[in-house]
Amino acid sequence: MTTKDRISGVLSPVVTPFKSDLSTDPDRFVRQCRWLLTQDVGLAVFGTNSEANSLSTEEKIELLDRLVGAGLDPARMMPGTGCCALPDSVRLSAHAMKLGCGGVLMLPPFYYKGVSDDGLFKSFAEVIERVGDRRLRIYLYHIPPVSQVPITVGLIERLLKAYPGIVAGAKDSSGDWNNTQAYLVNFGSQGFDVFAGSETFLLQNMRNGGAGCISATANINPGPIARLFATWKEADADQQQAKLDQIRGIVSRYPMIPALKATIAHHGGDASWATVRPPLVALTPEQRASLVKELDGAGFTMPGLKDSGVKN
Amino acid sequence: MTTKDRISGVLSPVVTPFKSDLSTDPDRFVRQCRWLLTQDVGLAVFGTNSEANSLSTEEKIELLDRLVGAGLDPARMMPGTGCCALPDSVRLSAHAMKLGCGGVLMLPPFYYKGVSDDGLFKSFAEVIERVGDRRLRIYLYHIPPVSQVPITVGLIERLLKAYPGIVAGAKDSSGDWNNTQAYLVNFGSQGFDVFAGSETFLLQNMRNGGAGCISATANINPGPIARLFATWKEADADQQQAKLDQIRGIVSRYPMIPALKATIAHHGGDASWATVRPPLVALTPEQRASLVKELDGAGFTMPGLKDSGVKN
Repeated sequence: MTTKDRISGVLSPVVTPFKSDLSTDPDRFVRQCRWLLTQDVGLAVFGTNSEANSLSTEEKIELLDRLVGAGLDPARMMPGTGCCALPDSVRLSAHAMKLGCGGVLMLPPFYYKGVSDDGLFKSFAEVIERVGDRRLRIYLYHIPPVSQVPITVGLIERLLKAYPGIVAGAKDSSGDWNNTQAYLVNFGSQGFDVFAGSETFLLQNMRNGGAGCISATANINPGPIARLFATWKEADADQQQAKLDQIRGIVSRYPMIPALKATIAHHGGDASWATVRPPLVALTPEQRASLVKELDGAGFTMPGLKDSGVKN
Repeated sequence: MTTKDRISGVLSPVVTPFKSDLSTDPDRFVRQCRWLLTQDVGLAVFGTNSEANSLSTEEKIELLDRLVGAGLDPARMMPGTGCCALPDSVRLSAHAMKLGCGGVLMLPPFYYKGVSDDGLFKSFAEVIERVGDRRLRIYLYHIPPVSQVPITVGLIERLLKAYPGIVAGAKDSSGDWNNTQAYLVNFGSQGFDVFAGSETFLLQNMRNGGAGCISATANINPGPIARLFATWKEADADQQQAKLDQIRGIVSRYPMIPALKATIAHHGGDASWATVRPPLVALTPEQRASLVKELDGAGFTMPGLKDSGVKN
């Protein structure tokens, strides 16, 4: 079940463009986000694949301001606002609410490992209480391979009881369908919207009552992923899913974030898009050539990207 | 080998006091740091045990300013300045240099996992280049159980070659003596100072050319740990080590940070010291009572703590 006025569908953890001095590039960012919206894909900016955890809080606030200032619809935005430090999570979430964002995607504090559900509950509760805005919609971000701090069913249960309506859903990037299913079975009937962490599980998620997906690959393959979301009940859904899996499979053979950026650089005709911030490293020329060739072989295109002015 | 004018000895990753509203408590912080200095223990503020990753960059800057403003010697300070985001690491490290800190203890960016030594090299190199201060002394912080991102021998080799003098040493919190030894054997003769991550390895580290230790337990047992550092060549060194191990062993049976804070609260007569920030949780009353009893049974005391005005 999805609730009215809630974000659903396909969202992209939008990759963050950097200038050659590694500073953020708001102009390119606005253009990329605008192009994604034309593809019916929402803006989960500041996700893992956005290199969000390589950005300062000030940089995130500036980028978000620039998006909204450029006239992009904040209702389509679900910025990542979960940081290690409580004051940063509060500041970012409150700012997102002030701008009218449709929701926020919240990592648990991820430095300290082996923390209790009690501590995580208190952490999310403090953010909610301090933001103090009934419009707040929090999507819990479960990505144990990276954060190493899981969002358990028990934790969601406590949060939903304490903050119904505000705790609005989750993104499951565990890659474990059993976990996604556990979220759906336990909380799907309570207005808790479950997003798969990649389009790999999009069809399965929709068939089991999910709300869509938030996927790295939506940065480069937004149209076809959004089309499956829009038409998942139609006869060709499994065929669509297979085609999406093929593209995802190719990209997954390379380091994800550099591969996404290299693909945008290639198809947008804008080499500077390939820049990543340390500790990540860009693809080698050999990796880039091989990726482009593999994607070309699968008939991959990025329609409208060049026209959208992604290039400076 | 340790180099002149370099920090050596015992340092404490000073626990950070919070008020009941979870804001930082600079007054208590200054008093605690002053007491530690009277015990011949240096100030590795903003370490893992300082809940540093639950503090915003602004909060760290304010606390550091308060310490120096209160007249504490910045040469005795090795603040933790390694953050996920490059701009934060640069800002904090530059600020520490401006204040004249003896060094900085630097975590690698720790959100993204499985990153390459190339990417980590670039990350540290960018910080060094952007701070642009020849006085900078970086101590690399290896704590794989928490950061999940290791500081390998190969990485240190590259950094030492590129930035001799600036890359000044490491703290090894792996708990693996073989790793500490590898640092010592490979780099000990190059002016690279190796600090053990706890006093458990203090004597062994000194006997193998190490520079001291940076230990959580130095928050509560600073005098005896500093005495072993000062007298490690004397006949009773093994006995001293055994006594340190006994105290450490007791504390280690409890969650470390809450246990340190509960101990300071008890021996300082100041209950508010027990406050931790989420996602950590304070000890239960039962845990607290049991910890105090165990420490009392081992003859544990915190001389001078109450007199130092740790209590408000």
